[in-house]
Amino acid sequence: FENDHVLAFLSTGPIHPGHTLVIPKVHSDQIYQVSDETASAIGIALKTVSHMVKKAVAADGINIHMNNEKAAGQEVFHAHFHIIPRYFKDGYKNWGAAHSYKTGEMATLAKKIQAQL
Amino acid sequence: FENDHVLAFLSTGPIHPGHTLVIPKVHSDQIYQVSDETASAIGIALKTVSHMVKKAVAADGINIHMNNEKAAGQEVFHAHFHIIPRYFKDGYKNWGAAHSYKTGEMATLAKKIQAQL
Repeated sequence: FENDHVLAFLSTGPIHPGHTLVIPKVHSDQIYQVSDETASAIGIALKTVSHMVKKAVAADGINIHMNNEKAAGQEVFHAHFHIIPRYFKDGYKNWGAAHSYKTGEMATLAKKIQAQL
Repeated sequence: FENDHVLAFLSTGPIHPGHTLVIPKVHSDQIYQVSDETASAIGIALKTVSHMVKKAVAADGINIHMNNEKAAGQEVFHAHFHIIPRYFKDGYKNWGAAHSYKTGEMATLAKKIQAQL
């Protein structure tokens, strides 16, 4: 899959066959720096390629995953999304909830995040 | 964060404080069914909200994650992306490569995926 802004190709180290990477053509280390035009194209590619992969390998579900920066597990420093086919009982576990907010903590934090726009 | 097509809000069951969900306003069970307009808006929201969250909570990195269908861990059946702040040595591990392609297997599979467009 390819358009003016993004490219999709098979990962050589897949979780399951059909595991695909979606990358911007213009170099960005992480998602933060891509242009709005590229970000839009990425959104459409994630939708389109997820569906293509699901059908091609008859997956029971699809995870979309992205690691931004070393602390988040990024190893290749060109922004890339993983499209990962999944199957019932394939043994992969998602991370569970790990933090409980105290009263008022969410509202304060939401304001702090809003202030970054 | 909100625009005509998407909405972002804090998860009530966060991995770390600041863990945010990005959802389309028009209902879709999974990413496959969203309109191109919504998919574009999601791409821009993922970029923008990731950066806002990173700055607000001084994260060392950001994971973007989405579960489509039960087999991929989806529990709430309105399409949603997770924006997850990460920190060095916070203990979360990404899934490792698990499949080795045989000679010719990748080319055949790539053609099969392309044929779904």
